[in-house]
Amino acid sequence: MLVNGKDYRTVWMEGCVIKTIEQRKLPHDFEIKELQTTKEVYDSIKQMMIRGAPAIGAMGAFGLAQAMLLYKGYDYQAFKEYIQQTRDHLASSRPTAHDLFHGLAYVFSALDETRDIITAQTKAVDRANAYADRSVEACKRIGEYGSKLIKKNMGILTHCNAGALATVDWGTALAPMRIAHQKHIPFFVFVDETRPRIQGANLTAFELKQEGIDFALIADNAAGYYMKKGEIHLIITGTDRVAANGDVANKIGTYTKAVLAKEHNIPMYIAAPTSTIDFSCVSGDDIPIEERDQDEVHYVHGKTSDGKMERVRISPKGAASKNPAFDVTPARYITGLITEYGIIPATQKAIAELKTTMQRDAALTKQSR
Amino acid sequence: MLVNGKDYRTVWMEGCVIKTIEQRKLPHDFEIKELQTTKEVYDSIKQMMIRGAPAIGAMGAFGLAQAMLLYKGYDYQAFKEYIQQTRDHLASSRPTAHDLFHGLAYVFSALDETRDIITAQTKAVDRANAYADRSVEACKRIGEYGSKLIKKNMGILTHCNAGALATVDWGTALAPMRIAHQKHIPFFVFVDETRPRIQGANLTAFELKQEGIDFALIADNAAGYYMKKGEIHLIITGTDRVAANGDVANKIGTYTKAVLAKEHNIPMYIAAPTSTIDFSCVSGDDIPIEERDQDEVHYVHGKTSDGKMERVRISPKGAASKNPAFDVTPARYITGLITEYGIIPATQKAIAELKTTMQRDAALTKQSR
Repeated sequence: MLVNGKDYRTVWMEGCVIKTIEQRKLPHDFEIKELQTTKEVYDSIKQMMIRGAPAIGAMGAFGLAQAMLLYKGYDYQAFKEYIQQTRDHLASSRPTAHDLFHGLAYVFSALDETRDIITAQTKAVDRANAYADRSVEACKRIGEYGSKLIKKNMGILTHCNAGALATVDWGTALAPMRIAHQKHIPFFVFVDETRPRIQGANLTAFELKQEGIDFALIADNAAGYYMKKGEIHLIITGTDRVAANGDVANKIGTYTKAVLAKEHNIPMYIAAPTSTIDFSCVSGDDIPIEERDQDEVHYVHGKTSDGKMERVRISPKGAASKNPAFDVTPARYITGLITEYGIIPATQKAIAELKTTMQRDAALTKQSR
Repeated sequence: MLVNGKDYRTVWMEGCVIKTIEQRKLPHDFEIKELQTTKEVYDSIKQMMIRGAPAIGAMGAFGLAQAMLLYKGYDYQAFKEYIQQTRDHLASSRPTAHDLFHGLAYVFSALDETRDIITAQTKAVDRANAYADRSVEACKRIGEYGSKLIKKNMGILTHCNAGALATVDWGTALAPMRIAHQKHIPFFVFVDETRPRIQGANLTAFELKQEGIDFALIADNAAGYYMKKGEIHLIITGTDRVAANGDVANKIGTYTKAVLAKEHNIPMYIAAPTSTIDFSCVSGDDIPIEERDQDEVHYVHGKTSDGKMERVRISPKGAASKNPAFDVTPARYITGLITEYGIIPATQKAIAELKTTMQRDAALTKQSR
């Protein structure tokens, strides 16, 4: 992703140091943080310096590789036990993030292939880098498939941040826009601010501005107005989890956009890397919805006129709020899922077929090793 | 309306002093401001210390009566000219507020009945009080009719603030809830925060809390989630302007709630005092939508941890935003209009009949004088 004209990833490793963008200061200040210890890696996830499932997955992978590199002992069994503990510790930094477990497991499996600490260290770093690269490649392919949906002078709505900052690079929902922009297709993005955590205002607006893509920030309330006016022709959002029947869990408010899209006959696409598809989850009804801290609704974070990051209260003291973090959009509202294997309908049949393709792919990859 | 257990109106007059609630400090601090001069009255409207069409109408009425009371000269012609100028000046404080012109005209017409300054002053004060009382009475009747829609254990959604603070007392959309609460009917209110100006968080939450009505503040994004979950059974909002065909202009986001309501078969009612019905406006297409300052989207106002009112920026410097203040909900989405004459369908026919009733009523009132 471009920031101040330079190309960045959200997280990467240099020697024993993990580098990452401090996302809590965005969009106001751009800072690269250097994480030197497992504690710092744990805190970066826990305290949301980094967020977005694929980005957290890569952070976990790099974090575990770093823990191996930093190990000072010589006893393999003690090393393995320590790394096992570290893996479990890092996994507990965000217990709902499946990508985190995958990233950790992928690096941990370096231990299966050797009983030598130095070999394990090398393999772990290779695996962490491969994990990140694979994530980048999947996003880029989503961008290429999705970019074909973007026609000249379209108005596109997106919700929350499914951008490079939520992944390792490119993003999911924003990848098609990046690619279309590189192809010099002119289009305009309506960016939902996405209360309560305002990831649209903080992150998506930041990314699009840095990329030079034409956009306007809107209140979440205004999307319906622009759909009715005929200024929105396409909706692309990301997802946290896709069920086997095509139901999609994503940031609260996505369902509302889907209902509006149906009312106005606007195609609604979900950028869904296959890592977000939960084949064991029968339908959206099985996805539990996290109810987050009430204070996220009562307060807004931002930068004051004298340059301080501050949170301001907007509601009366002692008032109650309700704060569901996600909602589920039933498959029937969704025009298609943009995966790294292509765009597929949000149906049980298409998702089952995708699973078969993925299994064949994995088998071929193993054979060719 | 109850505040700290005491009964208040939004604006009233004591001697030559106009008293009003300082709404810009709500919900954090409750202050009564005393307006001693026409300049202070003008500023209270211009700077949004008071807002909401019916409240502004009453402020205009009291403001013009006050200007008459404060007049020090003895020449009737000079008095009349001065009052004419004051009327035009006050009207310019919010050029889009029809109620303001009505309030001013109603008090100004005191000059039609006399050529004596002292008589005019007395009549003006009587008229200003009558104007405010009539507004209160209309809201209370809306409350009585609307309260019949509220059944035991209902979940009710409201958007923006159509409460006592936007009127002289009772409110429009909140009046049915006040009356139902007085009748000890248990119900629960979902309060949309209503970005960008967060009148739901600032004002509706304040009113309901003071009144002891059970509610939770939600992000505008969460309403669809609770409708799908079956927890919202009724929607009541206010309106800025109703067209002759039943189309309704109201705070941005109302249209979105109406589309969601249709999708979930939830009745959507608009509390619409007849003063908001514009019989000369053929349809919603004729209602111009004000595009307000972009900064309302880029900033959020609130109270910091050290007790200061402050605005914080949430978007990157230099980003564009779009900020339509209102949207139009077509009549077909609306279950009914709650007026002070009863609940009517949002149809051209019903609105034309209402006009006939109102004209008959006005004729009877004149006869009985």
